[in-house]
Amino acid sequence: MAKMTPRTLSGFMELLPAPQQQLERIMEILRRTYALYGFTPLDTPVIESSDVLLAKGGGETEKQIYRFQKGDADLSLRFDLTVPLAKYVALHYNDLSFPFRRYQIGKVYRGERAQRGRFREFYQADIDIIGDGKLSIINEAEIPAIIYQTFSALGLRRFQIRVNNRKILNGFYAMLGLSEKSGDIMRTVDKLEKIGPEKVKAILTEDFAVSPADAEEILRFIAITGESGAVLAALETYRGRSPLFDEGLEELSTVVRYLGDFGVPAENFAVDLTIARGLDYYTGTVYETTLLDHPEIGSVCSGGRYDNLAEFYTDRQLPGAGISIGLTRLFYVLGEQGMLNPDLPTAPADVLILPMTEDLSPAISLATLLRQNGIRTQLHCEEKKFKQKIAYADKLSIPYVIFLGEDEVQAGVVTCKDMATGEQTKLEPAATVYRIKAGLAERDKGAVILG
Amino acid sequence: MAKMTPRTLSGFMELLPAPQQQLERIMEILRRTYALYGFTPLDTPVIESSDVLLAKGGGETEKQIYRFQKGDADLSLRFDLTVPLAKYVALHYNDLSFPFRRYQIGKVYRGERAQRGRFREFYQADIDIIGDGKLSIINEAEIPAIIYQTFSALGLRRFQIRVNNRKILNGFYAMLGLSEKSGDIMRTVDKLEKIGPEKVKAILTEDFAVSPADAEEILRFIAITGESGAVLAALETYRGRSPLFDEGLEELSTVVRYLGDFGVPAENFAVDLTIARGLDYYTGTVYETTLLDHPEIGSVCSGGRYDNLAEFYTDRQLPGAGISIGLTRLFYVLGEQGMLNPDLPTAPADVLILPMTEDLSPAISLATLLRQNGIRTQLHCEEKKFKQKIAYADKLSIPYVIFLGEDEVQAGVVTCKDMATGEQTKLEPAATVYRIKAGLAERDKGAVILG
Repeated sequence: MAKMTPRTLSGFMELLPAPQQQLERIMEILRRTYALYGFTPLDTPVIESSDVLLAKGGGETEKQIYRFQKGDADLSLRFDLTVPLAKYVALHYNDLSFPFRRYQIGKVYRGERAQRGRFREFYQADIDIIGDGKLSIINEAEIPAIIYQTFSALGLRRFQIRVNNRKILNGFYAMLGLSEKSGDIMRTVDKLEKIGPEKVKAILTEDFAVSPADAEEILRFIAITGESGAVLAALETYRGRSPLFDEGLEELSTVVRYLGDFGVPAENFAVDLTIARGLDYYTGTVYETTLLDHPEIGSVCSGGRYDNLAEFYTDRQLPGAGISIGLTRLFYVLGEQGMLNPDLPTAPADVLILPMTEDLSPAISLATLLRQNGIRTQLHCEEKKFKQKIAYADKLSIPYVIFLGEDEVQAGVVTCKDMATGEQTKLEPAATVYRIKAGLAERDKGAVILG
Repeated sequence: MAKMTPRTLSGFMELLPAPQQQLERIMEILRRTYALYGFTPLDTPVIESSDVLLAKGGGETEKQIYRFQKGDADLSLRFDLTVPLAKYVALHYNDLSFPFRRYQIGKVYRGERAQRGRFREFYQADIDIIGDGKLSIINEAEIPAIIYQTFSALGLRRFQIRVNNRKILNGFYAMLGLSEKSGDIMRTVDKLEKIGPEKVKAILTEDFAVSPADAEEILRFIAITGESGAVLAALETYRGRSPLFDEGLEELSTVVRYLGDFGVPAENFAVDLTIARGLDYYTGTVYETTLLDHPEIGSVCSGGRYDNLAEFYTDRQLPGAGISIGLTRLFYVLGEQGMLNPDLPTAPADVLILPMTEDLSPAISLATLLRQNGIRTQLHCEEKKFKQKIAYADKLSIPYVIFLGEDEVQAGVVTCKDMATGEQTKLEPAATVYRIKAGLAERDKGAVILG
């Protein structure tokens, strides 16, 4: 028969079993952490009607979307988890209680140009808090705690949550009478780290007709850095010139004030006035998260406060705050950087049983006992040489191998080999279970991510 | 602004938060159970190249598939998890160790005619064991244990795992010289429960030219029922007339022999000679699982042994055994039948904290403490009346509400209300944590499914 060469589409991540176990572990930690903060899991369809999904329309997104006909229906694959959330909240408004807190970890689709580290199918891990009409600033203050807890639980230490407030930015540009140019200015200022202050000033004055004095003022403003208290003190000197600015400053002060109570260490947090994020969407606090030893990766968790989640579907004012982790890309980058802990178990089983008797009853009963004790167990009954079966356990990093021959069955014991140390014990089944469980607990202690 | 009416496509399940929690719980139990038996999680792309996905070609499937162009690429959404597994194993053959045991819980797509209880996007939960060249019968004997453990862990008691062996069927028809008609015969026999033996006999003799004597013989054969030992004894009387039959009988005897060691109670198991399953695919043991009180649902977990997983991609012989649960449909049916335990927690949080002080520090610190103790906690700081906040907890079934006023802060205690009993305690935070954790453990004790 002619064979079709098997292949996986470029831009689609398909992992081997060991890295898949690492990714599963990360997803499990995300689920657990999000749940700790009172977020409920949601799952929306991957396919939506195109008119619903593209209600907002236009932009780069529409070009990248996977859109197709099926019968009479014009369908599209979701390109993020925010639009489906907006639809969900508008559609199920009467069945939901507000504030509505949900997390969703799901695949999204963008037909981007394929290149290394860019994916067309990728997981996003989102949380959002949606209010009905209003939403307290405390929700925005809580989000750094969720980011901190998430990355800490994954094992990261050297990361920084950077926070700004769009009202402060917009208020500041209003003070200078530059509100209408604020979009262009913010996009330029965003390049500060890359191109330096002189270039920024040149672009502002030449391309956007900002006066040299105002350009200086802008550069002075965004140069305000330091620990949070110092930044807030510097911002206080601008108070009284724009109600919007003052409101933003109040909000930012509240966010900073409760950080300690929320359990966020000062060294993992910074106010960063250069952060703006999606210009036509965010309206209050905005967040980015960077790995201190890998700034080149960019933000690994971003988001902010928005005033109107579902304006394309409903007249109701549904403000919200949320963050998103681009999980597939993060996982890829962590792997590239060698930051995934290789010592955590990735084996499909904790124990491989090699029966060495004609009658398999004792081996099967032992497997059942181990499983009843929560130990992941595989029986290896294939016709292979003993050496090949040991090599199998070795290759899969299965930590324990149990041999069960006539002698052991007669004596009511099992021989159990610790594959890491080579140590071999001959103990009763219950004692073997105890030893294995203790060993597994020890092996499971590390974090997923090194850093 | 003109609004787009939000809607979800028909045939696509989109759950409210409480049922979503129930589904998540079921998926978590499936993951845990599959892992106990040494299966490793896999995740393959939802989109594949059409030529790869449809290598086998033809049939009902191709009409239902979601297929579309994106740029130059002819793409399709996966319609099951078996073809992607075949592709995966053929593609990554050199990186895998055999036997290769994987589970996958993922969405698949079929553009079926929309009707109640039928879904176009649905979860399948599959396990498969793939051998390289050969695969021991013990794997087939183990599968009833996995099915039993899965449904038991979900809470089901009254279900039956029905097993047959295709070699017994094919061998039996070979004895009668009816091998070429065996497909037609099995499809007819499959209707026995619906149309009765007389109708079956009529179809066999009239439509398929089976002699009346042979038709009688076939009806006698498939009428062999009873407990497994009795069925095997009856089958022994046919031994020696077909090597294939004898081989199948050996296999079936092995499966039955080890059931007890695998922990499968006799009452949850039956040999059923009427079961055939996918006629051109399965070659050995086949499985169906029925709910004894809801036979109308049909099989909720089916599968079997096959000789050639990936013949369209590789010359290698890759035999396997696997089962699949149509999770979305099962969940829908369980809901319809009122079999989902309503007493298990579905709330987004375990505790709702109502701060009643100007300074939110004590409330936030308490939330942090609760979360550090693994208690899912939400702060409710919105501008709402006290009564509305209690109603919010009530509506979401949040089991505990904590009030934190100046008095409590001064006294170093918190007031905690058990929303189910109305009981209110005023205890130190640590004692409150202890009480809540004990209460939650109690609430979490039930099973997901009643029955």
